[in-house]
Amino acid sequence: MDLRPNLRSDSVVPLYRQLYEQIALKIRSGEFEPGERLPATRELAGLLGLNRTTISAAYEMLEGEGLIAGQVGRGSFVTGKCDARPGAVAWGALLDRGAAPAMASGTAPGNAREAVSFATSRPSRELFPLDEFRASCAAVLAREDLADILQLGSPSGYEPLRRYLLEEARRQQLAGDRDDLLITNGCQQALDLIGRVLLGAGDAVIVEDPTYPGLKNLLTGLGARLIGLPVGHDGMDTAQLARAIERERPRLIVVTPNFQNPTGATMPVASRLALMEAARTGGVPVVENDPYGDLRYHGQPLPAIKQLDDRDGTVLLRSFSKVSFPGLRVGWAVGPRPLLDRLRQAKETADLHSDQLSQAVLLDFAESGRLEAHRQHVLASSADRLRATLEGCRRFLPPGTRWTEPEGGMNIWVRLPDPLDAGELLARAQREGVNYLPARYFMISRQEPGGLRLSFAGIEPERILRGLAVLGRVVAGELARAAAHFEPVSAMV
Amino acid sequence: MDLRPNLRSDSVVPLYRQLYEQIALKIRSGEFEPGERLPATRELAGLLGLNRTTISAAYEMLEGEGLIAGQVGRGSFVTGKCDARPGAVAWGALLDRGAAPAMASGTAPGNAREAVSFATSRPSRELFPLDEFRASCAAVLAREDLADILQLGSPSGYEPLRRYLLEEARRQQLAGDRDDLLITNGCQQALDLIGRVLLGAGDAVIVEDPTYPGLKNLLTGLGARLIGLPVGHDGMDTAQLARAIERERPRLIVVTPNFQNPTGATMPVASRLALMEAARTGGVPVVENDPYGDLRYHGQPLPAIKQLDDRDGTVLLRSFSKVSFPGLRVGWAVGPRPLLDRLRQAKETADLHSDQLSQAVLLDFAESGRLEAHRQHVLASSADRLRATLEGCRRFLPPGTRWTEPEGGMNIWVRLPDPLDAGELLARAQREGVNYLPARYFMISRQEPGGLRLSFAGIEPERILRGLAVLGRVVAGELARAAAHFEPVSAMV
Repeated sequence: MDLRPNLRSDSVVPLYRQLYEQIALKIRSGEFEPGERLPATRELAGLLGLNRTTISAAYEMLEGEGLIAGQVGRGSFVTGKCDARPGAVAWGALLDRGAAPAMASGTAPGNAREAVSFATSRPSRELFPLDEFRASCAAVLAREDLADILQLGSPSGYEPLRRYLLEEARRQQLAGDRDDLLITNGCQQALDLIGRVLLGAGDAVIVEDPTYPGLKNLLTGLGARLIGLPVGHDGMDTAQLARAIERERPRLIVVTPNFQNPTGATMPVASRLALMEAARTGGVPVVENDPYGDLRYHGQPLPAIKQLDDRDGTVLLRSFSKVSFPGLRVGWAVGPRPLLDRLRQAKETADLHSDQLSQAVLLDFAESGRLEAHRQHVLASSADRLRATLEGCRRFLPPGTRWTEPEGGMNIWVRLPDPLDAGELLARAQREGVNYLPARYFMISRQEPGGLRLSFAGIEPERILRGLAVLGRVVAGELARAAAHFEPVSAMV
Repeated sequence: MDLRPNLRSDSVVPLYRQLYEQIALKIRSGEFEPGERLPATRELAGLLGLNRTTISAAYEMLEGEGLIAGQVGRGSFVTGKCDARPGAVAWGALLDRGAAPAMASGTAPGNAREAVSFATSRPSRELFPLDEFRASCAAVLAREDLADILQLGSPSGYEPLRRYLLEEARRQQLAGDRDDLLITNGCQQALDLIGRVLLGAGDAVIVEDPTYPGLKNLLTGLGARLIGLPVGHDGMDTAQLARAIERERPRLIVVTPNFQNPTGATMPVASRLALMEAARTGGVPVVENDPYGDLRYHGQPLPAIKQLDDRDGTVLLRSFSKVSFPGLRVGWAVGPRPLLDRLRQAKETADLHSDQLSQAVLLDFAESGRLEAHRQHVLASSADRLRATLEGCRRFLPPGTRWTEPEGGMNIWVRLPDPLDAGELLARAQREGVNYLPARYFMISRQEPGGLRLSFAGIEPERILRGLAVLGRVVAGELARAAAHFEPVSAMV
């Protein structure tokens, strides 16, 4: 029985549920045969570095489905009851044929101690300006054309918002005469639509290594071949880019030039220009994924790649979600009209159009100046959180640990000293009440066992410091243990 | 120059814009070469059965892009200026490789006379209960957990709404113990997600013939092979189903058992059972697409296919959009857990989750009883509109015309007497101020030149009658002309 589930800590789907699903699929597809024994919960917990309660919860769901039976402590057995009703549809076989996307989770540390979770890259719920949001809702609800907002809309987006964003983009020289703008359900959908119109199975796509799981899963789900270029202090390593383009003939380069997820790295202008040159030589389109650009806490804003591109080859993705309310799914893509025309068709096929109530509310939120006021508030508050994070790293992480020091965004990347493995360390950190995402969720072709992402934007400074103090203790403890273990034994003479 | 654009009347994208896009793509991809002459606007208008202003608008956009030049009346020429800047990305070639989805439009009749458009299947804007909607918004905005609604959510959907819908589905015996429920952006996204997890290029899918363009485009876009079964008075012809399943080995059957779009046909219980039996024998999953089920104006509701299916083989799709506000994109899928688990993963990849503000508002709208009160109002009003439509057909359409007489939904299907072609007739009808969608937008493998869809739900009864009076005149006129033309000439003896 090969039970190596692909669990994803950053998913909002709890780990136990992911585990349940993956085992259930293996049983239904016949990969696990009737009578086979599943590992005992304690054994599997150790193997996967998870809490035993997580495993038990998954097993209980499998028992509830009748897929396994037995006593939990002793080990459980595959029943063979799946799809056993006459004429039952063999979902396991039907679903297994397609490439099962690598999915998995760990947001819930699943223990009683107060947890500090650095696992999710999202804004702080406490900062949401609820009264201002209510005021924008009230303004929309009072409008004479409210019924138009509630009626079937356009795949391009709610036209007043689309026009506003396009004018803003023109004002900032992010859009030219040959550009168009499409509203999407956040950056994620824009990436998905781009993948659907431009990528086929086996197509190469150049991405940053590490990159975030949402992008990785999306591209592998479309059958793309990911070419990871290492991310350094200056973001994607453009020195390797020209060679990679020549060798791999990619269909697309996807890059996050500002406060990249997970590293927080920002590309300086020279790197942006180098990327543009390499892309030009290869005739490769660039997707400039920029959900964090508005969240700069220090230093000067840099020109977008889209601005530097005079060959109509870049599409810029932006979103309201990181700077305002992620629960409202509104982002947009600005780029050359031939591409945007096709994206709009793909959008219509995918879900007709984005939700219009949220589009109208966010338009009012932006036009009224409330968005900018909120952004200033977020900038000040997030600067404190970033400061606390960097201070916590300096104070609590043992010597030999390294980390990035971004000027904005929501994430920093930490590298633990050798020989520590951030993935192996996670279970212990979670037991102590701290959660993070280890490198394996982000890496493309390299390994970086000591790497982990700390997402700080959603946590108050004192809790950040408390969490890092705990993490520091865990890391130091493991380091001491590793040193003891690896200490060369003196020769017995 | 092969200029046969694939224009879609039912799209919210105006016809001129679709025409512009398709010509632009042909120029950019090099299919139309520099120096080639485009037909004069008048000529192309005649060829395509469109208004000359539609053609002119498309040509103006092409001129604006620098893709064509010349004097509009004399004909215009491809300039060859596209992608001519050094290093410009060859979008035409990049985008042409993938299967260009068949896209096209005609919602805008584009003439001065007051238009009665039977072209769009959507509810009446005038019936939207704005005060009740505002009350539900107010209830949501006053909630203590408002910030949770605005925070990043779950791919499964806003949990309180998901639970409410699942309990409702259980109460109505539409969901059993082995079922789960996923919130989607309307039925369209549910279909898209199902296609993405179950279909690969070349897979056969059984659909109704005719069916609606949103489904047709989606499935062909995924590379599926559509097998159309004729729709009669009792919906999909189940007598042919068993043979089609054996011959084509489909991956999926997609069926709209209630008030099918475009025909309005409803499957009686016997047909539902026959479909279920055939699907069982072939082990084929069924997608029960049911956006119109709640819009029954007369007669008794029938059991859902999902209820008749004891083999866990059916997924049921429903939506708020047809019965309340299409601008809010909230629908759901109920079905067997193995499938739903995968759909949820696909949803997370596609756009993380559906918009939470609209989900929360619609939950309040439903729980408060406002949705049901509105539905009763819609039922009464739509019954009048259906009655007016059927009365108008009887009074104004010439003898030999046939039409369906549904007991609910938003559409009826009209068949004009031979030798009339509803597509050829459309330009004349539009000139007279009436719009509809001719059969070519709906047909899968059959031809039905006389067929057309009348969507009546969004139009007031008097305007329905007025529109049908005009349509009747146009049809009678064309019929007289055809009769004159085809009259056998007496032998000259």
